Amino acid sequence: MEKIKVGILGATGSVGQKFIELLSGHPWFEIYELAASAKSAGKKYGDAVNWIMNSPLDEKIKNITVKVCEPGLESRLLFSALDSKVAGELETYFAQEGYCVISNARNHRFDPDVPLIIPEVNSEHLELLEKQNFGGGCIVTNPNCSTIGAVTAIKPMDDLFGVEELNVVTMQAVSGGGYPGVPSLDIVGNILPFIPGEEEKMETEPLKILGDFNGEKIIDAKIKISAQCNRVPVIDGHTETAQVKFKKKPRGVNELIDAINNFRGEPQKLNLPGAPERPLIYLDQPNAPQPRIHSGYGNGMSVVVGRLRECGLFDYKFVVLSHNTVRGAAGNTILIAELMKEKGILAKYLK
Amino acid sequence: MEKIKVGILGATGSVGQKFIELLSGHPWFEIYELAASAKSAGKKYGDAVNWIMNSPLDEKIKNITVKVCEPGLESRLLFSALDSKVAGELETYFAQEGYCVISNARNHRFDPDVPLIIPEVNSEHLELLEKQNFGGGCIVTNPNCSTIGAVTAIKPMDDLFGVEELNVVTMQAVSGGGYPGVPSLDIVGNILPFIPGEEEKMETEPLKILGDFNGEKIIDAKIKISAQCNRVPVIDGHTETAQVKFKKKPRGVNELIDAINNFRGEPQKLNLPGAPERPLIYLDQPNAPQPRIHSGYGNGMSVVVGRLRECGLFDYKFVVLSHNTVRGAAGNTILIAELMKEKGILAKYLK
Amino acid sequence: MEKIKVGILGATGSVGQKFIELLSGHPWFEIYELAASAKSAGKKYGDAVNWIMNSPLDEKIKNITVKVCEPGLESRLLFSALDSKVAGELETYFAQEGYCVISNARNHRFDPDVPLIIPEVNSEHLELLEKQNFGGGCIVTNPNCSTIGAVTAIKPMDDLFGVEELNVVTMQAVSGGGYPGVPSLDIVGNILPFIPGEEEKMETEPLKILGDFNGEKIIDAKIKISAQCNRVPVIDGHTETAQVKFKKKPRGVNELIDAINNFRGEPQKLNLPGAPERPLIYLDQPNAPQPRIHSGYGNGMSVVVGRLRECGLFDYKFVVLSHNTVRGAAGNTILIAELMKEKGILAKYLK
Amino acid sequence: MEKIKVGILGATGSVGQKFIELLSGHPWFEIYELAASAKSAGKKYGDAVNWIMNSPLDEKIKNITVKVCEPGLESRLLFSALDSKVAGELETYFAQEGYCVISNARNHRFDPDVPLIIPEVNSEHLELLEKQNFGGGCIVTNPNCSTIGAVTAIKPMDDLFGVEELNVVTMQAVSGGGYPGVPSLDIVGNILPFIPGEEEKMETEPLKILGDFNGEKIIDAKIKISAQCNRVPVIDGHTETAQVKFKKKPRGVNELIDAINNFRGEPQKLNLPGAPERPLIYLDQPNAPQPRIHSGYGNGMSVVVGRLRECGLFDYKFVVLSHNTVRGAAGNTILIAELMKEKGILAKYLK
Repeated sequence: MEKIKVGILGATGSVGQKFIELLSGHPWFEIYELAASAKSAGKKYGDAVNWIMNSPLDEKIKNITVKVCEPGLESRLLFSALDSKVAGELETYFAQEGYCVISNARNHRFDPDVPLIIPEVNSEHLELLEKQNFGGGCIVTNPNCSTIGAVTAIKPMDDLFGVEELNVVTMQAVSGGGYPGVPSLDIVGNILPFIPGEEEKMETEPLKILGDFNGEKIIDAKIKISAQCNRVPVIDGHTETAQVKFKKKPRGVNELIDAINNFRGEPQKLNLPGAPERPLIYLDQPNAPQPRIHSGYGNGMSVVVGRLRECGLFDYKFVVLSHNTVRGAAGNTILIAELMKEKGILAKYLK
Repeated sequence: MEKIKVGILGATGSVGQKFIELLSGHPWFEIYELAASAKSAGKKYGDAVNWIMNSPLDEKIKNITVKVCEPGLESRLLFSALDSKVAGELETYFAQEGYCVISNARNHRFDPDVPLIIPEVNSEHLELLEKQNFGGGCIVTNPNCSTIGAVTAIKPMDDLFGVEELNVVTMQAVSGGGYPGVPSLDIVGNILPFIPGEEEKMETEPLKILGDFNGEKIIDAKIKISAQCNRVPVIDGHTETAQVKFKKKPRGVNELIDAINNFRGEPQKLNLPGAPERPLIYLDQPNAPQPRIHSGYGNGMSVVVGRLRECGLFDYKFVVLSHNTVRGAAGNTILIAELMKEKGILAKYLK
Repeated sequence: MEKIKVGILGATGSVGQKFIELLSGHPWFEIYELAASAKSAGKKYGDAVNWIMNSPLDEKIKNITVKVCEPGLESRLLFSALDSKVAGELETYFAQEGYCVISNARNHRFDPDVPLIIPEVNSEHLELLEKQNFGGGCIVTNPNCSTIGAVTAIKPMDDLFGVEELNVVTMQAVSGGGYPGVPSLDIVGNILPFIPGEEEKMETEPLKILGDFNGEKIIDAKIKISAQCNRVPVIDGHTETAQVKFKKKPRGVNELIDAINNFRGEPQKLNLPGAPERPLIYLDQPNAPQPRIHSGYGNGMSVVVGRLRECGLFDYKFVVLSHNTVRGAAGNTILIAELMKEKGILAKYLK
Repeated sequence: MEKIKVGILGATGSVGQKFIELLSGHPWFEIYELAASAKSAGKKYGDAVNWIMNSPLDEKIKNITVKVCEPGLESRLLFSALDSKVAGELETYFAQEGYCVISNARNHRFDPDVPLIIPEVNSEHLELLEKQNFGGGCIVTNPNCSTIGAVTAIKPMDDLFGVEELNVVTMQAVSGGGYPGVPSLDIVGNILPFIPGEEEKMETEPLKILGDFNGEKIIDAKIKISAQCNRVPVIDGHTETAQVKFKKKPRGVNELIDAINNFRGEPQKLNLPGAPERPLIYLDQPNAPQPRIHSGYGNGMSVVVGRLRECGLFDYKFVVLSHNTVRGAAGNTILIAELMKEKGILAKYLK
């Protein structure tokens, strides 16, 4: 099988780099083009990038000449790691030119005809693409990094008991702020109790993701959500304390833990290459999950849950951890592409 | 005026050291005796201690010979920084021998006749001492470090509107774990989502502190509380996100902010030497309070509040910061002693 | 006595903020004007600044309207915290207009007629000002933050034994990089083994500072120096391992430790308000000095030395710590101004 | 081929855990027995250990019952991660009982008949085993974590130009201190400029490792070494600044860089399973190597070098990074075992 050529928009930033790292050796996709701002365009990628990944930059990738982010790219499948300042217009432009754009940017997440996808949670929302009308291409979006962990964790609980209220407090890693991102003077030995725009994303995105597609549009889920977002001096891995109130009462902690451990989604059924064996892993030990220790579970694609216990104010409370640049960004985006390919959705955009 | 001689129990530990640092140059109290475990007893303090405070150890203190923690101490006022493994029995013993013990340990906090005091919040609970019967001496306790910030912050709100529910998630500094305390491998670039025993303290102590003394005993406040406690790589300053539901509804955010800024307690009225000008300080900027920047406000005795806003699940949510080893431990304990002196309670224990 | 009005150039940056913090309540100097880039000019300082100091911003300072960095300022004494991109020309301009500029920027440090001063080390170099010809005003410079610690530490040794070789490896705090400065992704749980331009400064500045003024110009000291500079995840305090080879051999470690402990400079003799009692403090304990614990000694103006021992390659090796934004920047600059005032040098520039 | 059964002594500590992690799926060795102190013996490993590795603990390993560290173990090949307090006697005991003990402990490193091995550097020192007389078994030792990086880095330079002087300053990760190891209060936002015993190890071990085996004993290399060791808030990866003086002068930087990049040792020639493709990797970028980014190169088995440049005091200076728990401990120990197997040395101890 010939690999599908992919292009990465915003390839020099930290999410762009993570796409490159995760696509290395991918069985279906091949990095064919790297596009970035005018400042980088024309240079070899190795000269344009300040590579901050932990694995060495592949020699072949190093020698790719960076292109500008304009239609004219040969790859029909584009992963967008564009900054939200430019992503809105550029992604529309590419979609109108027939490209399949799967984006990590926030700009199109709430467009009524754009799916906002966690493959294990709402793969059926991809049907919304039939309603999409960009003139040939399409846009699919990836939720915010802090949203993905919480929503994946409550998905099996929601299926069984109906989540009515969700209260989340996050402790988010600095890699979520990109590069150069959070200044060290702000975060070494410190906490920032505010991340601009983050709480709004966490209070709205889950409603769309957990909503129902009625053949025409997505009807938002009816969940009351409050989010409080903090930045902590951790490199990778967003830790979140969650409290939930259910419509139907579970019989106890074990029923929920079983639901977590047994949860499998479409990517597991389809055995997608980027799908972790288990999208959710429950850890029994009292002091888990911890971002530095557990965020790499399932190659960073498993969401890890711990400390599930009764709550005096809600029904249950627990701790959720997800790798914010893998499951929370590039990894989830690639998994969306794999899902689209396997479900036969991708083919039409590849011509 | 001759200064009152004080002894410090558990003087070599990190809280003991903080007592020494804060009592340096105190106008009323003079460090007269330092007591510690048998391992340190007999040594000069400077040789027995691994001094980890930021200010140099006073030469005079350095030369004090450490005593054992046994009655026989000449100082009648004792600040206890004892480990909870030994504090229970030892403090009882000292009280029975007529000493006034003000303790940072958890052991006696829930004894029905032992006051649990934040001077600005429940100074009237000191009347409980009249019911106490240790044969001459007394025990007064200091709340847990994570409790003090939250309770002080909600006190003026509770006075005005009646707090019905309190939901707290903490991000606690490593100095709260003592020395050697939290291993660096557990916390550098990491979060520990569990602190043994901490959530239980936070869910029960506020009920006693905010309770009513009816002349006989303290009637616990009726507040539903949930606490989730995390350790973060911060040196000093516990940050807490708090959500509250009131019995009576405030007219808006400003009414609460005014209540916070105008709050003064008994220590301010009595102009106690260790009282901060303002026990609560509200900061307007969007990303405050931060532990590294703001925990030293009011010499570590002011609790700092920020980000007060409406909440979709409770009525309001906000961020609280308090210096855990000053207001949350040694500083609050010393303020209790100052309060007892100024109210004429201390005199009887000094003979 | 009326206070001398001072202006701060580059007042909104992190060094500018440190000037404001240190000048609060200064007995001789009064912050009269704050100047910054066009972006901030015209705004109230409280609105223009992202205040990152640990003490609250003074209300009076908050309300000062920021001016542009152009002659027209009324204050004749200016502390420059300008970025090196603009400091060169601007400082010259101000000096030509008659101002006394004491600068933290690197630009004029090697001008042959500009003194590079550590008040305890080479106060006599201020005589160079008589050779300076900016048309009425003057420029005096402050050494680089990493230079000041090492040079102050070796000064008494150099006086007694003649330093022939100096080998330094630094572990520098992030506050030395300004704000936003070092990205958190680069330094949380990491080391950066390179600081652009830093090694060159450390290998050349000591030669001028320890040089002789022969009535005409400064003759560089003859010391062979090698510097290796690293950035570490520390907020304040540059730690440096130093190795020295002497012309004359000391009789042993104690002779050097005595020299360190007995060292006093002109600021101590003149009893300047910003002078620490001891410019150098030697700590005996095996694991000192440590930046988080000891960099505040002498209000951040004492350089702390420890672990002095024999070296198999040089004569002796030891560890030096200095507070990089106080002794290494704003504090040293203010001390220069105090020295100039007390020696009667400042008066002529104030008219 | 049947796998060789191995036992791990001190299996619950952090180095013990790293052995388990690295031996997972090993083609030649199979973890058969885990031994630890009396406190853990008799428990299932999963219950006895506080697992702090980043990958999940294997289910099979979890269920192994921990044994005491006494002869009676069936595995004839033992990896020792014993604490130095007990390693000396215990390892001797096992060797006398016929076991092949490859140890990470410091106790036997300077026994004249015990090889101290970095497989790429001095594999020929294994011949010393023929002189060893423990009554059937043997002891081979692994150098200290901070020694391995520096010695591997200078090995190809030493071969070509003869190292005469080596000056090293280390910035060592906290994982080198074991668990619980370094207290967080000592290292969060701080530097410890002292590691007990470390400098002595670094100043002596290289002499033995780089020495010549003359058929009878090892003649120490004649290199003058000075080491200064610091602990920094980094999880994994010791960074070291090194300065070297050569007997023969290289023609320039490039000759040394080529020597580094072309260096291959016995493990590469034998294609051992744990051997990295390149034991030394030179990085060109100005700010490399960095512990968080580069310590995993070659699966933690490559030593990474950067910033090689001329030095004003020695001939050249550069930065060395090595993964202290992989190449600096468990990984190197396993590589020694692989080397012994492939060279036919191991067989005689397996019966």
